[in-house]
Amino acid sequence: VAVIACIVADWGTTNLRAWALDAEGGIVDRRESSHGLLTIERGRFAEALAEVASGWLPASPSRSMPVLLSGMVGSKLGWKEVPYLALPMALDELARHVGPVESPLHAAIRIVPGVKRDDAKQPDVMRGEETQIFGALQILKGQDGVFVLPGTHSKWAIVEKGKLISFRTYMTGEVFGLLRRSGTLSQLMEGDHHDDAAFAEGVARGASADAGGLLHRLFSVRTLGLLDQMPRANLASYLSGLLIGAEVRDGLAWLRLADRAGITTGIGSPAILESYRQALRILSGADLAVIDSGDVVPPALFSIARAAGLLTATSV
Amino acid sequence: VAVIACIVADWGTTNLRAWALDAEGGIVDRRESSHGLLTIERGRFAEALAEVASGWLPASPSRSMPVLLSGMVGSKLGWKEVPYLALPMALDELARHVGPVESPLHAAIRIVPGVKRDDAKQPDVMRGEETQIFGALQILKGQDGVFVLPGTHSKWAIVEKGKLISFRTYMTGEVFGLLRRSGTLSQLMEGDHHDDAAFAEGVARGASADAGGLLHRLFSVRTLGLLDQMPRANLASYLSGLLIGAEVRDGLAWLRLADRAGITTGIGSPAILESYRQALRILSGADLAVIDSGDVVPPALFSIARAAGLLTATSV
Repeated sequence: VAVIACIVADWGTTNLRAWALDAEGGIVDRRESSHGLLTIERGRFAEALAEVASGWLPASPSRSMPVLLSGMVGSKLGWKEVPYLALPMALDELARHVGPVESPLHAAIRIVPGVKRDDAKQPDVMRGEETQIFGALQILKGQDGVFVLPGTHSKWAIVEKGKLISFRTYMTGEVFGLLRRSGTLSQLMEGDHHDDAAFAEGVARGASADAGGLLHRLFSVRTLGLLDQMPRANLASYLSGLLIGAEVRDGLAWLRLADRAGITTGIGSPAILESYRQALRILSGADLAVIDSGDVVPPALFSIARAAGLLTATSV
Repeated sequence: VAVIACIVADWGTTNLRAWALDAEGGIVDRRESSHGLLTIERGRFAEALAEVASGWLPASPSRSMPVLLSGMVGSKLGWKEVPYLALPMALDELARHVGPVESPLHAAIRIVPGVKRDDAKQPDVMRGEETQIFGALQILKGQDGVFVLPGTHSKWAIVEKGKLISFRTYMTGEVFGLLRRSGTLSQLMEGDHHDDAAFAEGVARGASADAGGLLHRLFSVRTLGLLDQMPRANLASYLSGLLIGAEVRDGLAWLRLADRAGITTGIGSPAILESYRQALRILSGADLAVIDSGDVVPPALFSIARAAGLLTATSV
């Protein structure tokens, strides 16, 4: 039986993904829960952690299990606010700024800080993605890279010599969800089947310079449906293409301004990365290397936990 | 006591505004109801019309009151679908294409057609705004003009020699409503107080070429709130500015492409027109002449009803 040396978790707005790791960072067990921040009532974070880590925590109060968390759990809306680190930020600084959380559990809990771009003209924030980027660099054994992390709030990020030097957030996933579930476009969209051709048409239109701003282009979902120019079952794929196309077009322009050749690596779930890969191929001809975010979080948090000296302090 | 010669109404997705007019088009009475299309159940349009026109319709079946309707009531989702007219469309053609609706009421009901831009690359549709534009031209005693009609789905339109030659829709109002009421931005926005400075800052950022695409700029609402760079009570005004700024920037670029000097006239409710006026002043320095949409609909529909020969057929 493998011995659990620490627990790590990516705790975001909608999900909680946790891993039990051994002393070398090997995965002993893993669990996923829908207890993201939005479902936690009245600050019951310790209860949600105890539930997802059931059987992993020591029964005796004489031991304290190291627990390292990343993501929105460290925000104002989370368990405890851990101040943002400012850009440019060396990724190995994360370990020096983990923030402690008190709890009744037999655990020594720390949260990884987020990162802010504290610029009045272009402010931005991330929480959780910094850990994924750190993990991807370890896997790639590199110190430089350009990353895209699709999701509710997609992040595009540039790393140079081990430092996160810039990033940009897009509300692509959230805007898709709002328009898919409510409002006048949702009335016309039928089903969630993915249609490649409709997605590609959306990407092309979403990225076209002469198709008008996004607020105009979005209305084409309605028009194509009303004028029977596209089957309603394909409209959700088309909308997804419109939004991802708009994001990728702007992201590529941003990278050109920053004098970066292009995206090297996508980090996320395989399904959404496939859509970004397709959009990138349409818009730039380039391919997207992909890393499953589930593969980067455990080694990244293990490495931060070790660098922060958390693994040695398990007995009290 | 003035005699009611006809009833006209602007019947949209969320509202029903009706007027009783005399034989010269003078307003005898007016009513407003929240029985927009979204609240009509199981096709009970006749009941909703009878309610808003209570006391206006003849008691005796020997008379049939002319009723002319415009707006989404003529769409697939409305009372009866009246086919779209295609661009370019002479506005005086509207009268020749009004569509009849059967009903048990003592009324001869017609619906004004909408307009479509039936172009695979840039399809677009309007229903109701064509009537408002027709009415504005009558008030302005002109045959040419550029119009902006802000709303849930804003329309920008170009009229030349009495013909509607082009238009473009923006989902500005709907996207604002979705983001204001739900999702992660809504959690940070407090109240609906209008702050001029926050609105102006949103307009400037929403229209800035180097501030990234809209999906990125929207996230600044969250960042400014999280980093305490803007009071939460001002974030809704800032979001409104971001969206209207994005629309006006794109609309102005579209007008330049179409070789039009700028917007001459806004048609809508006074409050929303004031926001567009401010945005336009910030982005182009130009002023916006404004017409209250409540002032254009009755004369426009009266004029269409007369041209369609509806006013003479009141006795059966």
